[in-house]
This record gives sequence, structure tokens and C-alpha cells, in this order.
Amino acid sequence: MKPNRIREIWAKGGCALNAFLSIPSPFAAEIMAAQGYDGLIVDLQHGVIDYMTAVGMFQAMQGNPVAPMARVEWLDPVAIMKILDAGAYGVICPMVNTADDAARLVSYARYPPHGVRSFGPGRAVFSAGADYGQRAEDEIVVLAMIETAEAMENLDAIAATPGLDGLYIGPVDLTLALTGRKYRIGFDREEPEMIEAIQRVLAAAHGAGKRAALHCGSMEYALRGKEWGFDMVTVSNDVRLMAGAAAASVQAFRTGQTKSFDGSY
Amino acid sequence: MKPNRIREIWAKGGCALNAFLSIPSPFAAEIMAAQGYDGLIVDLQHGVIDYMTAVGMFQAMQGNPVAPMARVEWLDPVAIMKILDAGAYGVICPMVNTADDAARLVSYARYPPHGVRSFGPGRAVFSAGADYGQRAEDEIVVLAMIETAEAMENLDAIAATPGLDGLYIGPVDLTLALTGRKYRIGFDREEPEMIEAIQRVLAAAHGAGKRAALHCGSMEYALRGKEWGFDMVTVSNDVRLMAGAAAASVQAFRTGQTKSFDGSY
Amino acid sequence: MKPNRIREIWAKGGCALNAFLSIPSPFAAEIMAAQGYDGLIVDLQHGVIDYMTAVGMFQAMQGNPVAPMARVEWLDPVAIMKILDAGAYGVICPMVNTADDAARLVSYARYPPHGVRSFGPGRAVFSAGADYGQRAEDEIVVLAMIETAEAMENLDAIAATPGLDGLYIGPVDLTLALTGRKYRIGFDREEPEMIEAIQRVLAAAHGAGKRAALHCGSMEYALRGKEWGFDMVTVSNDVRLMAGAAAASVQAFRTGQTKSFDGSY
Amino acid sequence: MKPNRIREIWAKGGCALNAFLSIPSPFAAEIMAAQGYDGLIVDLQHGVIDYMTAVGMFQAMQGNPVAPMARVEWLDPVAIMKILDAGAYGVICPMVNTADDAARLVSYARYPPHGVRSFGPGRAVFSAGADYGQRAEDEIVVLAMIETAEAMENLDAIAATPGLDGLYIGPVDLTLALTGRKYRIGFDREEPEMIEAIQRVLAAAHGAGKRAALHCGSMEYALRGKEWGFDMVTVSNDVRLMAGAAAASVQAFRTGQTKSFDGSY
Amino acid sequence: MKPNRIREIWAKGGCALNAFLSIPSPFAAEIMAAQGYDGLIVDLQHGVIDYMTAVGMFQAMQGNPVAPMARVEWLDPVAIMKILDAGAYGVICPMVNTADDAARLVSYARYPPHGVRSFGPGRAVFSAGADYGQRAEDEIVVLAMIETAEAMENLDAIAATPGLDGLYIGPVDLTLALTGRKYRIGFDREEPEMIEAIQRVLAAAHGAGKRAALHCGSMEYALRGKEWGFDMVTVSNDVRLMAGAAAASVQAFRTGQTKSFDGSY
Amino acid sequence: MKPNRIREIWAKGGCALNAFLSIPSPFAAEIMAAQGYDGLIVDLQHGVIDYMTAVGMFQAMQGNPVAPMARVEWLDPVAIMKILDAGAYGVICPMVNTADDAARLVSYARYPPHGVRSFGPGRAVFSAGADYGQRAEDEIVVLAMIETAEAMENLDAIAATPGLDGLYIGPVDLTLALTGRKYRIGFDREEPEMIEAIQRVLAAAHGAGKRAALHCGSMEYALRGKEWGFDMVTVSNDVRLMAGAAAASVQAFRTGQTKSFDGSY
Repeated sequence: MKPNRIREIWAKGGCALNAFLSIPSPFAAEIMAAQGYDGLIVDLQHGVIDYMTAVGMFQAMQGNPVAPMARVEWLDPVAIMKILDAGAYGVICPMVNTADDAARLVSYARYPPHGVRSFGPGRAVFSAGADYGQRAEDEIVVLAMIETAEAMENLDAIAATPGLDGLYIGPVDLTLALTGRKYRIGFDREEPEMIEAIQRVLAAAHGAGKRAALHCGSMEYALRGKEWGFDMVTVSNDVRLMAGAAAASVQAFRTGQTKSFDGSY
Repeated sequence: MKPNRIREIWAKGGCALNAFLSIPSPFAAEIMAAQGYDGLIVDLQHGVIDYMTAVGMFQAMQGNPVAPMARVEWLDPVAIMKILDAGAYGVICPMVNTADDAARLVSYARYPPHGVRSFGPGRAVFSAGADYGQRAEDEIVVLAMIETAEAMENLDAIAATPGLDGLYIGPVDLTLALTGRKYRIGFDREEPEMIEAIQRVLAAAHGAGKRAALHCGSMEYALRGKEWGFDMVTVSNDVRLMAGAAAASVQAFRTGQTKSFDGSY
Repeated sequence: MKPNRIREIWAKGGCALNAFLSIPSPFAAEIMAAQGYDGLIVDLQHGVIDYMTAVGMFQAMQGNPVAPMARVEWLDPVAIMKILDAGAYGVICPMVNTADDAARLVSYARYPPHGVRSFGPGRAVFSAGADYGQRAEDEIVVLAMIETAEAMENLDAIAATPGLDGLYIGPVDLTLALTGRKYRIGFDREEPEMIEAIQRVLAAAHGAGKRAALHCGSMEYALRGKEWGFDMVTVSNDVRLMAGAAAASVQAFRTGQTKSFDGSY
Repeated sequence: MKPNRIREIWAKGGCALNAFLSIPSPFAAEIMAAQGYDGLIVDLQHGVIDYMTAVGMFQAMQGNPVAPMARVEWLDPVAIMKILDAGAYGVICPMVNTADDAARLVSYARYPPHGVRSFGPGRAVFSAGADYGQRAEDEIVVLAMIETAEAMENLDAIAATPGLDGLYIGPVDLTLALTGRKYRIGFDREEPEMIEAIQRVLAAAHGAGKRAALHCGSMEYALRGKEWGFDMVTVSNDVRLMAGAAAASVQAFRTGQTKSFDGSY
Repeated sequence: MKPNRIREIWAKGGCALNAFLSIPSPFAAEIMAAQGYDGLIVDLQHGVIDYMTAVGMFQAMQGNPVAPMARVEWLDPVAIMKILDAGAYGVICPMVNTADDAARLVSYARYPPHGVRSFGPGRAVFSAGADYGQRAEDEIVVLAMIETAEAMENLDAIAATPGLDGLYIGPVDLTLALTGRKYRIGFDREEPEMIEAIQRVLAAAHGAGKRAALHCGSMEYALRGKEWGFDMVTVSNDVRLMAGAAAASVQAFRTGQTKSFDGSY
Repeated sequence: MKPNRIREIWAKGGCALNAFLSIPSPFAAEIMAAQGYDGLIVDLQHGVIDYMTAVGMFQAMQGNPVAPMARVEWLDPVAIMKILDAGAYGVICPMVNTADDAARLVSYARYPPHGVRSFGPGRAVFSAGADYGQRAEDEIVVLAMIETAEAMENLDAIAATPGLDGLYIGPVDLTLALTGRKYRIGFDREEPEMIEAIQRVLAAAHGAGKRAALHCGSMEYALRGKEWGFDMVTVSNDVRLMAGAAAASVQAFRTGQTKSFDGSY
């Protein structure tokens, strides 16, 4: 089975860099896969993407060593098992709120006796390797998104879930959940209570011997996350990168002044 | 019939800004259409795009006033008539080398008695308006790409073609054609003989009372083109904008230094 | 954010006219959008349509002011959140049977603190407007289908659900549920007990200050519904309109007599 | 090989009824195939349809005995051979203007020694039958569209082409070609010179022992065509049938009066 | 309504032969449908296939009398109702573990008063017949997959479920469930405890007057299953047949010796 | 630029093994790519495949070192340039009948000054490598199909064409062309005049210092071709391999005797 680049980086103590993919296009995924990311996460929850499109995107990423992963729609056995059968090397699950949620997440991603995943890796046996049935559980990464008040209360119990690889912070929903409409909607929180919440998730993950990942809107923030000790950062997505670069280009034409753009949006 | 934003800009003496679209995705087109361009050109020649995808891209652009156009595959009646029937407001045709080529191009885009276009605007009658049959020829823009040595020799004859709206410079092929493999392959030529060739096309177009358009890789060059008097500039495409922004983001992570990106690539 | 035509009509005390869309084709949706309907409801439950197709259909409707809506597959958070992120201005949910069902429906469609919708309007931020996060809950319409005996028992409690905009009668399932196989399967019920049931739903909705909508097979019945006081009627769908017109055409050829067709089927 | 319903009707001296298909949807084709037509013609020229979509439409028609045919984009060997390989039972070719055009059309549709069609009926061998290679030329129908002034001049020579099954009148282009912009654009011509032209094509076809087909917008006109002696009439298409029925439905709601619709548009 | 070939075979006391379909391609389904199977089961659980693709595959199978069926993703009302509306003549549901599971499965597949299926057979009314609403429950086959330890404990209760047509053994998951990682992962079990388990399911089904089906990897094993008394066997799938034949072909070239292949893999 | 496996084999004096791909499915291509072929040829001429599907198939092949190639529809600049831009490493062109045809074929596949290919390798620059513009002409293979009587007459002139890599025999059309309907339609000719013709093509290719390739239906024949000295053999395609294995499986069930299958059909 081809190795998971995310695990390789973690084995060396590194911090992995991902982007989200939200454009339903294998070719867009292929372009992104050529840019040097460690992992690319097909966003089945909020991206304009469904299962069949995700398969095409995974196929188009194969020419590069980037790890193909997915944020699934929901804590749902079908969603998780189908995307794993399709060759995903990692699953990020939204709205994991309790230890029971986390245990179900893990069980959907592992074969008996460690879980309830049904056997039939239709594509993975071709894309990942013929020994997929033996090796999948060692390579696949399973991450629980922490993005509700309930999850914050159950943080340690979630982190302690056997088989779970780590916690993944979704700052937009988490901020809405913890502070309501008090602040702007967005990534890269600067409010003290949000930075504290982020640090608590990081500490809970590391305290349980697990990984911590942070979703970011800008590279500046991601570099701070890396310094804080996060094992994985995700910076922006294909939509925002393209839209940001295009908007900068148009604005330069309208103003007559070329404007720099740092890939954030 | 909805007006053509390109013609509106020209009527005011302005210079229109376009980008090319090469990602086969209606959603990518929809994102680009929201960024403020005057026109977007679906690239059926070198983009990873076919007719059916182009239709979806045109449909997805409708929420914004951007002019939906196409670079067609070739000087071919089917290609030109089908994309017009699909609602294209402009056709840029590659490899127009002679006055006869230009006359054929025009004839494919106009109904009798001005041309040989077969009547049946399947989608355009819904997307552009019920009066499409009466008004299409006043709104649609037809541009001939100048990108071969033969075309340079026939410049004035091409420019004089009745019904042709203008000349569109393809600098990559034109440089290969005029100077072989002497220089780097790419847009935004700085070689004196290429700048002279570009100026000759501009002069030929304006001399014949036609428009001139320049394909560019960077905004700096496009602004020079605008100053030279071009009526339309195209800067980069969805692929390069996304890839450039992503590469800048990855490099910032690897070096620890956020790097600015101007939308050029 | 672009306004919701359905709410505009309701604000003026009018009755909105919709059709269902069941053909999986953006072009079919584009044609229907040009016919003057107030809203078009992509039928994800019984139409031959999935999420990705619905996105293309929404994109193709943008050239007209018709409200893009969806009947979702089921009372399921993924289904509801994904179609809203895709730009739906209204959600009609089948098989809402209890006040708890209705409360869950509302919660899936609203952001915290009014609901549990996860933030990430991937397409809506482009199609509806950049202020979607602030304005979505004022524009989106959420309707519960009443189509079971259990729902009839819980009618007032369902109607009283905060955040729910109204009740939508599904006459085919409701007739099967209330009268079994006693009557023909179909829309436009004439049986006294069914007319009474329809009137009860209308009264329950209006009694709670909510809207009432009626699904119809023919325009005659829809006009009766409008007279009864319904705020919205849906008449037929793309499939039945096309099939009905085609069947009438074929029959006219076979009999030699052109036959009129009123758009009902 | 499954028989061609059009040839069966002709063998009995009947007049076949077709509709055009212009919506790129197998399901739309499946619905139309259930309405009782003798043939359905996928419109690759002016429909919003490409080859791959046409294949899906042919597949979806198989449940009914209707003959699957195609109007090809142009007199082009690739277009004709690919759609035949895909299982088309008939080819209607636009803009056949000379006897040489007609001879080329026939040659693209027939295997050596009668033509130059390359052997490889990829889908037809499954959909039409394993004996396709032996029987195809007896079942497939090849029709030349007469729609230019040049074609009218060469009518007898075109009609005499060995292997050509008949002439198919395209009234919209033919009227534009013969009378310019003097009359409205559309089907169902009433102008004496156009009726005379239609009669001339009919006579030329029958004089050469070939079939004659007439494209119509309304059933009334098609019935006149049948009386005149045409062997095949095509009435309207999926787009116009659906749009016409929907528009009638909306108008009935707006006026409060249900209006009849005869399937014409 | 067109008859269900599986029921026809069962009515004569025969054993039906199926294959699974896991390639997301209507044309692949069309090829398989021409090979003489009694039924073809689109695998929505482990195949690389979603709902929309399954529709295209069903459409492409119509030219042959093979029964179009589906293994659904999960015991989920949406999955089951949508695939039935799309024209499936049989539903095989994974992971049915209790009598309650079986009762829910049946209820999702039957209209009131026998179940809770919502009425709206969007495609089935065209593909299966206009009397689908009256006849569907007599023709459709509903099978519960037995593949967990829990299901083995509840075997008789599951088999006794009214409206359930039979039990379908999934040997891969069942072996994992009953024996863990002790044996190779795969079909066609030879271990005594697995053969005993298979016989127990067969006996439970027949004891309750229901059908029994066995999933096999090779034809040898399927013939044994037929001899044991199974009413239906499924042998391999499109993926394995193609891969097996291709691998045999390549190996013959590499070794210089043509090797025979029996269709197993 | 990634190396072309076909050229690597030729550099070592070997004979390359290909299969054709005619199923329009990236997943089918991915399965085939895992079976050990040296090259896979997407059949755009007779396969049920178009350009956009071919792109997906190329993307899905990337996980294996197999050379992605295409048989194009026709000697057409658009067809050839678009498939090369999409990343094809080889082009097999049907119906090359004269030295002029061969020269045009080469010119469409090479950049100036060696040809007229327009520059814009949209996908190839990502899939093949950033140095594609510099290296493409050294890696890409261009083969002319010999399949008409006219081509046989011009064999030496065709073979002598500078830039052409070799001759590819299409035995089905060639047999029809040379012997009419005298013999069965099919591959693997045994008639003395056909074997002589095949040997003549082989000799002409080698005499001009070019490669020779033979299309075969069975592995036995391909091994003979290899012994005769062919540099490349293509054996069967995905359709025939799958259909052959499935038919063998069904027949074994009907007869009760498992039958061997050698991958030929």
C-alpha cells in the first residue's frame, strides 16, 4: 500500500500543510496536487462536491505524492465508508461532539474487530495497493472536528478515543458556537477567548497522545499555528485562492496599480 | 437581447478586461464571474474543456453581467455555430491566416444573407433573449487570432474583412512562428521584433477601423497594452491564477515567510 | 443578498406559483426558468436528480428572477445543509410528522444560535451575495410537508414551530395515508374527507401565522387552491408538462385531429 | 439486428412521426420515447447536445420501439461514423448542397465497398444486435437536408444519389436562404414561393424513388404535410413542447383562465 | 408493468444468476446486460457508483430482459426509496441485523398501508410501466444481507419478517464478523464453520418460506451453491471479470504462453 | 517530463503490449492500468468515448507507469492537438492514406518549426511535467494507421515521412478494403493475401527505420506478431475482455461446466 504522506511527516515530527478542495473538478484537483501540498482535503461538507466528483478528484491527484483526504458530510457510516473505499487516506469528520460520536467515527473507519466498516475497497485496492485490506488501518488518518460548545465540554473524552488520530479545529463554527454573533464570521480568530479555546484543543490532543490540526484562512495564521505546535494546518481552499488572485488582478487593472496577493483571502 | 458588456465598453472608448477559463467546471466559472471581469473567454482550444462543459460554464456565469465568450477550437463551422447557439457573445478564432480565413470566420457567425450560419439558437433564445434572431449580429463579437507568419503577411487584408470586429494577438504561437525556438516560450514578449509585431497588429486593426486585443500573462504587461491603445486585454486564466496563488501559499509555509503574489504566473 | 421572490410576493399578500423540476438537466431548468414561474422546486426526493445535478440547475436558473428552491430527500441535516450551501432559497421537507421533526428541520436550516447549521455557504456566497452569512435566515423559506396521518394529528404543534415558514400539502401521500388504497393515486383530490383535510392544514397554518402551500396536478385545482387562500401553489412538473404536450401531439397525429392540452397531465 | 421502425412504416406505405430532442438528458429522452413517436431525432446540430450525451439518450430510449436517430452537426465523417457506431438508426445531415455532398454523406454511412465507413460499431453491436456488421446498411436511414438555394438548384442530382434514402426539408434555413429576411423566421411556411419550394423537394424525392420528410412546428402543418404525401414529418421538439406547456400553465394562473395548448409552440 | 425476471425464474423453481456492477458506466452496464445474466445488481455500497450513475446504468440495461437491481448503501429510507423510484426491480440491503432492521427495510420498499414508501416513482412509471403504482409490490424483490454475528443470532426472526423476500449472504463481512482475521479475506469460504453458517442461513430462509441467495467469487462455488439449494447466486462483478481477463492476457504475453481464464478472479 | 514507457521498451529492442479502451469510464481505465500493460490506447474513433471522458481516463491512469495514448477520431488538427494537450503520450491516427496525410499528421503533433501544433499544453504541463514544451517531441509517439488500399499503394512514401514513428495495422478495415465482403469481419487474419499485406507493412516500416504495430484480437495472434518482429501489439480492449469473461461465466452456469477463457473474444 502506498504510504500516507501525512503519517510520514508526523513520523519525522513535522507539521503537514493541506488545502481544502471545494471546486467539483478533477482537473482543478490535479492542478492543486502539483503545487507541493502534503495533503489535499476534498470538502464534501461545504464544498460544491459529491461522492462521484470526489472519486474523479482522487484519480486526478495520483500523479503527485500528496495525500488524498476528505472532509465527510457528517458522522454517517455510508459517507465515511464510501469515501474510504474510494481511496481516501484521511477522513475529517465534522460535528464530533461526544466520546460516543468519536467512537462511532472510528468504528466506521476500521474493519472488524476494531470497527464495523464493511469490506469492499472497490477503488482503494487499485489506487492504494493490493494489500489494502491488511494495511489500511495503519495508513488511514481519522480526525474529529471540534466545532461546538458540546465538543469543548467533552474534549478530553473525545481525545482519549482509541483509534482516533487527532482533533481538527473548525474555527468558524466553533466561534459561532462559543460566542454567537458577537464577532465577524471567519477563520483566524484573534479574540482571547477563541485563542484560549484553540489552545485547549491543542493541549487536549497532545495530552492524549494525539495530533492536533488547525484550519486557517491565511498563511500568517498557519505559521502561528505551526509555532504553537499544531501537527497539521490547512490554509484556505481552491475557491479562495483562485477568487483572491482573480480579484487582485481585476483590481490592479481598475486602479492601474498591480497589487500583491499572498494567497490569503 | 441582453447587451454585450464588451460592446458597451467599446462604445465608451474603454479597454475591456478578460480572463481565459480553462478549468472544466461551471462552479469555477461562476467564481470567476463574480470577480469583476468584463468578459470571460472559455478556452475550447487549449483549455481542458469541451462544448458541453462550456454550456454549463455559460449557465453558471449568468448571475453577473460579464460577457460570456469562447475561443473556439479551430476555424470550423460546427465549432463556431454550436458555441454561438449555446449563447456565446463573442468568438475568438485561432490561426486565422488569410483574408479568406477571416471571411469564412465571419460567415460562420452570421445568418444569411451576411453569412452561412444555420438558424437554431437552441440555448441563446433563452439565455440572451427571445429577439436573438433579430439582434444577434449586432451584439456578438468576432475576433481573429493573429499568431502565424502567414497572418502577419496578410494583416491588412484580414483586418479589412467586413463583419470582423477585430484582431486578437496570441503571443506564444506568434513568437514561435516568427522567431522559432530562439526565445523562451511564453506571454509578455520583450524582444524588440516581437514588440514591433504586436504594434503592427494594433496599427493594422485600428487602421481598418477595427478593434485590437492582446493576450497577456501579467497585469503589468496588460497595463502597457492598455496604454499602447489596445481595446481589450486578457490576463492569465483560472488555472494560472489558482496555481500561482497556491504555489505562493505553499512556498510561504516552506520558507516561513509569507510571499506576495500579484495574480501573474 | 438577492431577494427571494417568494417572500416578495408574500409581502404583498399574493399567491406564488411554482413548478417542480424532476428532469436532471440544467438546460431543462433554464427553459423552465424562462416561463414566468415565481419559484421552481428541484425535486430531490422523487425527481431523477441528485445534489450535483441540482447545483447545475440552480446555476442555469440565474438568468431569471425565479426563486430556486428544493424539495429535499428527507429530514436529514446533510441534505438540507448542502442544498442551502448550494444556493437554495427555499427548502420543502417531506414527511414532517411531529413538532420535534419540525424543530429539527428549522434547526438544520438556521445558523447558531437559532439552529445547528454549519457555516460554509460554498456557492451561496457567490450566487446569493457576499452578505449571505448575515441575511440568509431572512430570505430562505422553510416549509414542512404534511403528508401522513401522524402529521395531521400534530398539525397545530407543527404549525407553531418557531422559524418554520409554513406547511406544504403533499396530496398523494396524504391521501394514501388517510384513506389507504380506497381512491385513485394522484393529485387534485375531490373526496370530501380529503378536501376537509386540506382545509384543516390551511387553517392550522394560517391560525399559527404561517403560510400554506398546496401541490396540484392541474391549473384548475390550483386556482381553487388560490381562492381557498393558499399562499403558494405548485402545479405539475417539467416531466408531466413535456410528456403531456408530447402525448397530445402524437395523439393528434394518430387521430388526425389536433387536440388541445391545458398543461395538466 | 432490431428492425428500424421507420422502415417498417415505410414498407407499409405509412407516414412516420418524429420529434427532435434538444435537451441534453437521457431521462428527457426516455420520457419522450414513452409517448408513442415512431422516431426521435437527437439534434446534434442545434440542440444543446454532444456525442456523449447522445449516447446516454439512445440508451434511455431502448425500452420503447421508437427509432433512435440523429441530426448530425455537419457533413463530417467523424460526426456521422461516431453516431452510427453509437447505435443511431438514422442520420439526418444538414446543408447537403450538391450531388457530391450527398455522395459523401452516403459514403460515410456505408461500409466498403459501398462507402468508406470504418468498421467498429462499438455500441451498436450490443444495442442493435450481433449481426450489425451484416445488416446495418439495410436498416439505417440516411437523409439529406435541403435548406439552401444551392441545394434547390441541385435537387434532382441530390435525389438521384445511390444509397441516399431521402430528402429532409429544413424550412427555417431554406426560407432564409430563398427569401432572406423578408418573412418571419420559423417553421410552417405559408408563403406561396415557400410552399412551391416544399412541393418541389417532395416531387424530386418521389421522382427519384426516394422518401421525403418535412420538419414542422405544429401538428396542423404536419397533417397537411402528410396529406401532401410526405413519408415522414417531424413536429416540434422536447424544448418547445415543455416550454409551450409551461407557458400555457403560467399564463392560466396569471389570467385565472385555464388555456388550452395543442403541443405546438 | 414489465415482469421481474428473477420472480419468473423463482416461479419455475429455478436458480437465478446475477453479477454485481461496480464500474460507474452505463455502457459497461449495457455490455454486461447483453451477456445473458438473469439479474444485474448495481452496487451502491462498495461499487464506485452513486445514485445518478445508477440511473444511467438502469437506462442502458433496458434493451435486454435482465432484472435491474441494486445493493443499496445502507438501511436508509432515502437510499431505498430513490433507487426504487429510479426503476430498481430488487433491493439488496447490507447489514440487516435484527427483525426490526428487516421490518424497516420492508417498510421503506412498500407503499402504505404495508409500508412508509412515499409515492412518486419518477422514472419507474416510464421504465416499468404506467401501472407501477398498482403492481410494484408484486414485482419488486427485497433481500436482507446477512453478514454480522448479530444477524446470525436473529436469523429466524429476520427470515420471518412479512414482506421480506429472502436472505442474501455476504461471505466476506460474515467471515470477518464470525472469525475475525483468522482466515484470508474473500468469497467462497471453505472453512467448516463458515460452510455451516452458510447452510444455517439457507435453512432459515427456506424454513420461513423465503428465498436464499449466495454471493460468490467463482463459478465453481456458485454451482455448489445451486446444488445446496440456493435460489439465487451472484458471481463476481464487472471489475473482477475485466481485471481478471486483462491480467490473464498480460501474463500470457509476458510468459509467451496463453493462459486460460474461467471468469473467476 | 515523465518518460514514455513505449519508447523505453523500444530503446531496449522490446515489443510493447497495449490494449484499447472503449468504455467511457475513468475507473475502468484505472482498473486496466493496474494490470501490467505497457500502454493503453483510448479509442476516440470507435470507442464510446469523447475528449472530456478521455481526460478523466488519462487522469485515472496516473497511478501506474503505463503510457496513456489515444486513437484519434480522424486526421484532424483539433482532435490531435486537444488530445496531446490533455497529456497523451501517443497518437494513433486512422485512415492515413498518402504521404501528404502522414506529413499533416506529423505536423499537427509537433510545434514549429517542425509542425503547426499550437502551443498550450493545458493539462500536459501538470501531468507530464513543467518541461513539456521542451521535451514533448522527444517523448510523444505518432503512428499512422494503414487500413485502406490507397495506403497500401503509398506504403513506402508514408513510412518515409520524417517525424512519423511508425505504422499501425488496422486489420478489420484493411481486410474489408483489400478483399471486400469475401471473408469474415474481424481481427487475426489467416488468409494468405492478408498475411502478405501485414508482412508488407512490417517490412515497409522497418525498411524506413520506423516501428510497426499490429492490432490483434487474441493473444495467440499477438505472440505470432511479436515473433514476426512487430515492435508493438495491441490485444483486444476493455469491452471484449469484460464481455468475454462475463459470457464465459454465464455459459458455465447454464451448462454446469466451468469453461476456461483466454482473454480473447
